[in-house]
Amino acid sequence: MNPTGAKPLAVSMGEPAGIGPDLILRLYAERQQHGLPAFIVYGHLDFLRARAQRLGLDIALVAAAPDAAAETFPNALPVADIAGLVPDKPGDSTPLSANVVVEAISQATFATLRGTCRGVVTAPIQKSVLYTAGFRHPGHTEFLAALCWPDQPQRQSVMMLAHDELRVVPLTVHVPLSSVPGLVTAELIGATCRTVAHDLRTRFGIETPRLALSGLNPHAGEDGSMGTEEQRIIGPAIVNLQREGLDVTGPLPADTLFHLPRWRQFDAVIAMYHDQALIPIKTVAFDAAVNITLGLPIVRTSPDHGTAFDLAGTGKASSASMLAAIRMAHRLTA
Amino acid sequence: MNPTGAKPLAVSMGEPAGIGPDLILRLYAERQQHGLPAFIVYGHLDFLRARAQRLGLDIALVAAAPDAAAETFPNALPVADIAGLVPDKPGDSTPLSANVVVEAISQATFATLRGTCRGVVTAPIQKSVLYTAGFRHPGHTEFLAALCWPDQPQRQSVMMLAHDELRVVPLTVHVPLSSVPGLVTAELIGATCRTVAHDLRTRFGIETPRLALSGLNPHAGEDGSMGTEEQRIIGPAIVNLQREGLDVTGPLPADTLFHLPRWRQFDAVIAMYHDQALIPIKTVAFDAAVNITLGLPIVRTSPDHGTAFDLAGTGKASSASMLAAIRMAHRLTA
Repeated sequence: MNPTGAKPLAVSMGEPAGIGPDLILRLYAERQQHGLPAFIVYGHLDFLRARAQRLGLDIALVAAAPDAAAETFPNALPVADIAGLVPDKPGDSTPLSANVVVEAISQATFATLRGTCRGVVTAPIQKSVLYTAGFRHPGHTEFLAALCWPDQPQRQSVMMLAHDELRVVPLTVHVPLSSVPGLVTAELIGATCRTVAHDLRTRFGIETPRLALSGLNPHAGEDGSMGTEEQRIIGPAIVNLQREGLDVTGPLPADTLFHLPRWRQFDAVIAMYHDQALIPIKTVAFDAAVNITLGLPIVRTSPDHGTAFDLAGTGKASSASMLAAIRMAHRLTA
Repeated sequence: MNPTGAKPLAVSMGEPAGIGPDLILRLYAERQQHGLPAFIVYGHLDFLRARAQRLGLDIALVAAAPDAAAETFPNALPVADIAGLVPDKPGDSTPLSANVVVEAISQATFATLRGTCRGVVTAPIQKSVLYTAGFRHPGHTEFLAALCWPDQPQRQSVMMLAHDELRVVPLTVHVPLSSVPGLVTAELIGATCRTVAHDLRTRFGIETPRLALSGLNPHAGEDGSMGTEEQRIIGPAIVNLQREGLDVTGPLPADTLFHLPRWRQFDAVIAMYHDQALIPIKTVAFDAAVNITLGLPIVRTSPDHGTAFDLAGTGKASSASMLAAIRMAHRLTA
């Protein structure tokens, strides 16, 4: 069950009105079938018990400390219990539970930072609910960066989406499309590529990572006839990175870059913006892609979907991406 | 061979240094295996004979008028011979042949406009070579519009890419990404959706076409937090079209729209820009998608690839997209 040693993965339970708790509980019930490594859930024990009962899952849950979790895991789901008010109301979110949701992420991260857990897997949160309760971060990725580097507010992590050996990184993420051209700078390209190459080496064991950058414009600008960012910014940034010894190709036309045989020629593609990266990965791996945060001192993965309020409590949500997220965290820390 | 009557499809030979002629000649050699309808090639007879010999194809080619083409087709490839200088030099393009290349498109279009041929299939051209010879249009699509509406220079055609029942239309096409937000207007959305719906009805036989529009921004703007074009422009344009009776859904987040079961819920997706449309279709159907020009008084299709100079004359280029283009033109005019 846990071939790589006694340390568990730390799984934060996510938004209680969403499908995150459902997926965690169902995967625990199916732990033998999937050959899952030991994990401990950071969340609210009574709520999780109520949700398991609602889903008709015949599993035991016990409060446990992380250093006892691996031993407990074969017989009962270990829960690092966080005090608070968390009602079992699928689809009906409330700021009342926000404190437990945020604490679950913090405590899972701290347990991993101090080495008690191997890595963090986060279930989806509902940002709008957390905002009403005072949460100030754009999302998980930025929150984890703040937890890992409290004294370095400028330091950024990098979001990667992966499915098997297909990997893609959006250079810019949750910004309006009209802001993208102004954010594509040599500095951001350099920092992102270095982080991606470093983590592919150290976490994925790829000795000489092959990176490709897409162009910003159609046909990567076609020699400047449809945009000049490739000639002014992306191309020179690639030359600089090549001089540093990185294996970087591009800028390549984005429309032909994600055809699978082409995509597989690279260990990661760095796309210039959200949809350029997420359209291809979600088109080929809709419910099985994993979100991996690079550049952190710890491993963090998450499923590539949201809280899906309409499916919460029904048992009908696909656990494929959550399963892939747990497996990926296991692989990266094994 | 030609179950729908005596009229042939008109195929323009495209750039002679590219793979277009190779694909046409090979598909003719395989006409029985593919069950191809009769077509006539607009191009240069001696050049085509030389290329067929280079490729080792045992086929006959004869000069023919389009009204005799269907009768000729079973025994010899009918060629509407255009006078000019066209050397058989794969990969080595020259402005010398530009006149024949452009005339082939014009004559194929006029033969279809006057009803002698059923529709036009264009092999890829090399625009940079044509430009040096004085060609003034951004591409095939605009050139055909100018041929069809010589008195209406403002009138625009619409580019659709299709693979089986998956169809996508880029609202804006060959422009820098930074220009896209300014080009997304209610007028363009309205005109494009009306043309797409009209042609899906009249050419594809879909009585009530279901259209979906993507958002411009990540997550379709997520209620304005990542861009406001959805709320200011795209959303109201959709409401207007719905009032006209069109079945239009959106704006929908682009990253989850092209997952195949989702995409298949619509008869066509209208994406806001080039890569948003072309990434998904080329990711799922790299060498088999067809480009269809909508809004013209005639049917015109083409393969969804370029001249591939490095493969010209080798016989190694995939004919899948050219075959699909011929079949699509046949289907749309049958």
